[in-house]
Amino acid sequence: MSSIWGEKVKISVFGGSHTEAIGVTIDGLPSGEKINMEEVLKDMARRAPGQDKTATPRLEKDFPNVICGLKDGFTTGAPLTAIIVNTNKKSHDYGEIPELVRPGHADLTALYKYGRFSDFRGGGHFSGRLTATLVFAGAVCKQILKRKGIVIGAHALSIGKAKDEGFDSVNISKELLERLNGEYFSVISSEAKEKMYGEIEKYRLEADSIGGVIECAVINVPKGIGEPMFGSVESVFSSILFSIPAVKGVEFGRGFGVSEIAGSENNDPYRINENGETVTETNNAGGILGGITNGMPIVFRIAVKPTPSIGKEQKTVNTNKNENAYFTVHGRHDPCIVPRAIPVAEAAAAIALMNLIK
Amino acid sequence: MSSIWGEKVKISVFGGSHTEAIGVTIDGLPSGEKINMEEVLKDMARRAPGQDKTATPRLEKDFPNVICGLKDGFTTGAPLTAIIVNTNKKSHDYGEIPELVRPGHADLTALYKYGRFSDFRGGGHFSGRLTATLVFAGAVCKQILKRKGIVIGAHALSIGKAKDEGFDSVNISKELLERLNGEYFSVISSEAKEKMYGEIEKYRLEADSIGGVIECAVINVPKGIGEPMFGSVESVFSSILFSIPAVKGVEFGRGFGVSEIAGSENNDPYRINENGETVTETNNAGGILGGITNGMPIVFRIAVKPTPSIGKEQKTVNTNKNENAYFTVHGRHDPCIVPRAIPVAEAAAAIALMNLIK
Amino acid sequence: MSSIWGEKVKISVFGGSHTEAIGVTIDGLPSGEKINMEEVLKDMARRAPGQDKTATPRLEKDFPNVICGLKDGFTTGAPLTAIIVNTNKKSHDYGEIPELVRPGHADLTALYKYGRFSDFRGGGHFSGRLTATLVFAGAVCKQILKRKGIVIGAHALSIGKAKDEGFDSVNISKELLERLNGEYFSVISSEAKEKMYGEIEKYRLEADSIGGVIECAVINVPKGIGEPMFGSVESVFSSILFSIPAVKGVEFGRGFGVSEIAGSENNDPYRINENGETVTETNNAGGILGGITNGMPIVFRIAVKPTPSIGKEQKTVNTNKNENAYFTVHGRHDPCIVPRAIPVAEAAAAIALMNLIK
Amino acid sequence: MSSIWGEKVKISVFGGSHTEAIGVTIDGLPSGEKINMEEVLKDMARRAPGQDKTATPRLEKDFPNVICGLKDGFTTGAPLTAIIVNTNKKSHDYGEIPELVRPGHADLTALYKYGRFSDFRGGGHFSGRLTATLVFAGAVCKQILKRKGIVIGAHALSIGKAKDEGFDSVNISKELLERLNGEYFSVISSEAKEKMYGEIEKYRLEADSIGGVIECAVINVPKGIGEPMFGSVESVFSSILFSIPAVKGVEFGRGFGVSEIAGSENNDPYRINENGETVTETNNAGGILGGITNGMPIVFRIAVKPTPSIGKEQKTVNTNKNENAYFTVHGRHDPCIVPRAIPVAEAAAAIALMNLIK
Repeated sequence: MSSIWGEKVKISVFGGSHTEAIGVTIDGLPSGEKINMEEVLKDMARRAPGQDKTATPRLEKDFPNVICGLKDGFTTGAPLTAIIVNTNKKSHDYGEIPELVRPGHADLTALYKYGRFSDFRGGGHFSGRLTATLVFAGAVCKQILKRKGIVIGAHALSIGKAKDEGFDSVNISKELLERLNGEYFSVISSEAKEKMYGEIEKYRLEADSIGGVIECAVINVPKGIGEPMFGSVESVFSSILFSIPAVKGVEFGRGFGVSEIAGSENNDPYRINENGETVTETNNAGGILGGITNGMPIVFRIAVKPTPSIGKEQKTVNTNKNENAYFTVHGRHDPCIVPRAIPVAEAAAAIALMNLIK
Repeated sequence: MSSIWGEKVKISVFGGSHTEAIGVTIDGLPSGEKINMEEVLKDMARRAPGQDKTATPRLEKDFPNVICGLKDGFTTGAPLTAIIVNTNKKSHDYGEIPELVRPGHADLTALYKYGRFSDFRGGGHFSGRLTATLVFAGAVCKQILKRKGIVIGAHALSIGKAKDEGFDSVNISKELLERLNGEYFSVISSEAKEKMYGEIEKYRLEADSIGGVIECAVINVPKGIGEPMFGSVESVFSSILFSIPAVKGVEFGRGFGVSEIAGSENNDPYRINENGETVTETNNAGGILGGITNGMPIVFRIAVKPTPSIGKEQKTVNTNKNENAYFTVHGRHDPCIVPRAIPVAEAAAAIALMNLIK
Repeated sequence: MSSIWGEKVKISVFGGSHTEAIGVTIDGLPSGEKINMEEVLKDMARRAPGQDKTATPRLEKDFPNVICGLKDGFTTGAPLTAIIVNTNKKSHDYGEIPELVRPGHADLTALYKYGRFSDFRGGGHFSGRLTATLVFAGAVCKQILKRKGIVIGAHALSIGKAKDEGFDSVNISKELLERLNGEYFSVISSEAKEKMYGEIEKYRLEADSIGGVIECAVINVPKGIGEPMFGSVESVFSSILFSIPAVKGVEFGRGFGVSEIAGSENNDPYRINENGETVTETNNAGGILGGITNGMPIVFRIAVKPTPSIGKEQKTVNTNKNENAYFTVHGRHDPCIVPRAIPVAEAAAAIALMNLIK
Repeated sequence: MSSIWGEKVKISVFGGSHTEAIGVTIDGLPSGEKINMEEVLKDMARRAPGQDKTATPRLEKDFPNVICGLKDGFTTGAPLTAIIVNTNKKSHDYGEIPELVRPGHADLTALYKYGRFSDFRGGGHFSGRLTATLVFAGAVCKQILKRKGIVIGAHALSIGKAKDEGFDSVNISKELLERLNGEYFSVISSEAKEKMYGEIEKYRLEADSIGGVIECAVINVPKGIGEPMFGSVESVFSSILFSIPAVKGVEFGRGFGVSEIAGSENNDPYRINENGETVTETNNAGGILGGITNGMPIVFRIAVKPTPSIGKEQKTVNTNKNENAYFTVHGRHDPCIVPRAIPVAEAAAAIALMNLIK
């Protein structure tokens, strides 16, 4: 594992912030699946920068060129590769690197791992820009899953102190998820969004940044997918979710909340519903017991750290002279990456699910 | 992936609660590593049941018989397999299963996945008993890591409302970790333990159970291990941590706390220390940036759900009649599995690290 | 990969010639498959030593104890592990090792790889004895495959200069395969067997050994399994076939014979048969085109080298003194391992197929 | 596994005969390796078509555009991706497909596997054209290996009845391998080449094709690489060698020849050479014992089938009408692909070795 993920459906991600192009190969897709490129572009637009004041106005074209794997709009069963040309390859914004390593970024760890040959321009292969390829792959997977009835949607649950309402985890409608799925910076409650904009603006004005939490749900998940132990749904999902840059926490269902409640509250009671199906009255398990789905919605949350690039002066070290130094990031950066990371969470969930479904 | 995990060092776990034996094969160990069985048994004793009132008094012998892979106490380089015979194979305690599926357990999802052929006795392959094999494998790995200076230790950070103090994540001594590492139900502050015992007792008396959080640290981690994206330290660790039954959340460094703080606070400032090494003044990153270690301690936390087996009556369904029913777990069960899960967290960390270190 | 093989159905092999036990874990089996242990033991008996004058009279008990994964004779879906206790752990026969490394064995390469900690007793983890675990796993897989109509059978195609007739690769009956499948030292033509016994006896009397070729066929293979390129049926089969000790060549269909024939002869002509199915008039492809099955029998051959343990004096080196030396293997060894390797070839084919079938 | 291969160094191959482009991503390369593109292009030219009368005069541009993974000519440690644009995307030559499936090609098996959505144009993802990406990846790996002293070279051992002399497997000079490595249609003996040209011409004039055998050697292989059983050098090599279209047999060292010789002849005697190193007097093992290298040259051979596209009329079936039919391939095709497959064998060996070397 490094830049390739998956077993049944593998994605291979390549490129860096300032290489000629970035791209992704999806290997193992079934043949005969119609892929609507308009839908894919909509998801990619949700991740694209420069949409509002929360995001950098830097121009970044995210147009994916599918060079193989589709014929007449249908998957052929052969690897599907999309290339996104980097049109903005100048790197002068990051000229001080890696002599002065940026705090909170991977500059120093890349130096440890790859030495001076690493591509430090704009974060290289560590750049958040690579998540465009995840969104592309996820958008392809989502269409295939949707044909099976499975719908995925995410929203900003919190940004700093501003909170959205959470999912009602036993009862999540397709309509809600599709709405979230179709919006930039999706939230459940529109008031939450205003508060979140306020929170982001506060940090932006201070030349600072702020983190947040994204909540994602998947409905109509087939029962009985996942494996005991190492192939648990949680293991598979977390493995790709923690691959999204800036994610420092992942939880399912009640998540860390389970630590403060009694078993009698946490155990989801089983009931037969009006259709004769077994459901649970609560969904603290997030749809997963023993690593395997029970048919209830899968609900998870990821913690997204504040953008490490901030306008404030920071303490760093000069790696050539091995001495203390100070560093200020020039250029403009997103004061909060949560809004743009929402479709990335959905994409990761879709890719993970494609690997779990038979 | 299902019951086999790892790339460089693979573990293959087998057996169930009431099978003739459980066991584990560790494949890919270097040759010539001395393994002290006394040390291994100490770790296994920390996970064994029946040590105090927090744990079930049910007798369970956890003696691992190493049938291959060691010669004269040293690893041979060939697969190392240990077998733990199940001496308590009677299953009458669970006679009502699977007609009535136990809420919070994997009974129903096992039924969905494997049908009536699944081994439901005591949870079968989903049983927490399987974690004995993880502890065995982890104890072997820990000895190899310790020879490289790497020390791992965990403690109960919280049980219900009772909290221990957390690690000072920039400055964790070998002595502290070794103390935690050598204790049953380890905590940093001894007062915390009393409060935790109180909390557990409260739920036990109510025929209920309670969850908690375990915090684990690894020190002297080599710089530059892990990969960008899918091979990130967080991805690799979380993949095995979420394989531990009952874990519903995993976070690194500041974890979910990053969602409420500014970039200027979250970015760990770099400084040169007295030895001329680059360190960080804080360790919100938990020792990992861009998926790769920076030499600071790796710190992570896992959320452990309350034991699903409780004495209280619970709502369930009768899977044969497909109708609502009520269920009461008979027999005795741990009111809190956090104390016994501490060495499991350490073991998972050790196994993960063995796969990351070159 | 090292001692674990497979993707969908993984086998993990452990133990060595003189360890307490050897064994195998099969992970990923479907649940609800009835496993007839008598059938398994029959296959294991075909590999067991001491059956006739071609094989060593050394006593070796190959009784597999299934410690988990079966309940009431049916697979549970959890890992199935079988342990075979080594009853003959004395190692004095091999006392000169590794000071004097045995030509043709892995002694020297084990020394290079694992150093003096390697388990050299009887070849350790490199011992042909480990193939007992493959036969066990293969016998389990064969029963599952047979329920889908798929039958596998192999025979000794040649031993030294003595030849059996080959399969008629377009028309292989279930009856023939089942006969081969049920015999020790199976051949198609009974005269061939007499000649082969003669050949083996000739080398045995010279304190020497002789190699051979095993041919294996699989019928009723589903159409369309395998993948283009790296997941080709040939790649998957060869990967496990070359894991059998002593195998130095693998070929499919016409194999090396394709090098001397014209395309017009090698291309298998398509015809519609009496059932309206597309078949080929010849089967030079061995049932595989572009890595994918076409429904014709899969036919492959493996070259098995002569037993490296021979009574004749051989040139070797003294690894302690780093000087030339001479070596004579004491004890008794099979003058030809081809007869016992036949069920191993079938087992490898069965395990490979379980990974390819959806 | 399907279009992705490897563990430590993974290659992901994408594209088809008539897609917009084909390409390959190499994941896991060390950083700081200088890659000489002239050398890479030389290897690719050896595989390119249209070089002489043995090959099709069809124009095919094989210029690889490296879009990421290299900076200033050095590997960065991030995935290296090269794209080769298909300039010849017209597909009218293959207009009769798949109604009439081409014998010896993957048309029918692709239809079985992927249905009518498969990309049948020019063989799609099954096309021999994909081997251009293997040669690219292999050429990159060869340069890294050469810096460690490891040299790989292959030659046409036979084409039809015309034979080259084989390697003297105990004594293969760097000069010989570098010569083979630098030539189109390399042979050891120049007379052999004339005979081979004669053989090819004979079949070409008959509108037919002919197969052959390629022999490849690797020298200065580190001792002790590979694993017992499933990670054997033979398993790893064969897995990628059988992924080369048209390969139907793979053998190491004496290969199928071991079946007719005595152990006393097959066992390679050990001797201390003038440098105090342990070598073998013969090399029937092909440098591999117990799956692990002994430092002698790795020698292997692959059987390459005759080009399935021939001008002669062939029996086929009409897949729409499910009836017998006749088929004649139009256009021009290589009467023998052995010359162009030589660098592919070297490339596969190089990629395999990169995965085995620590």
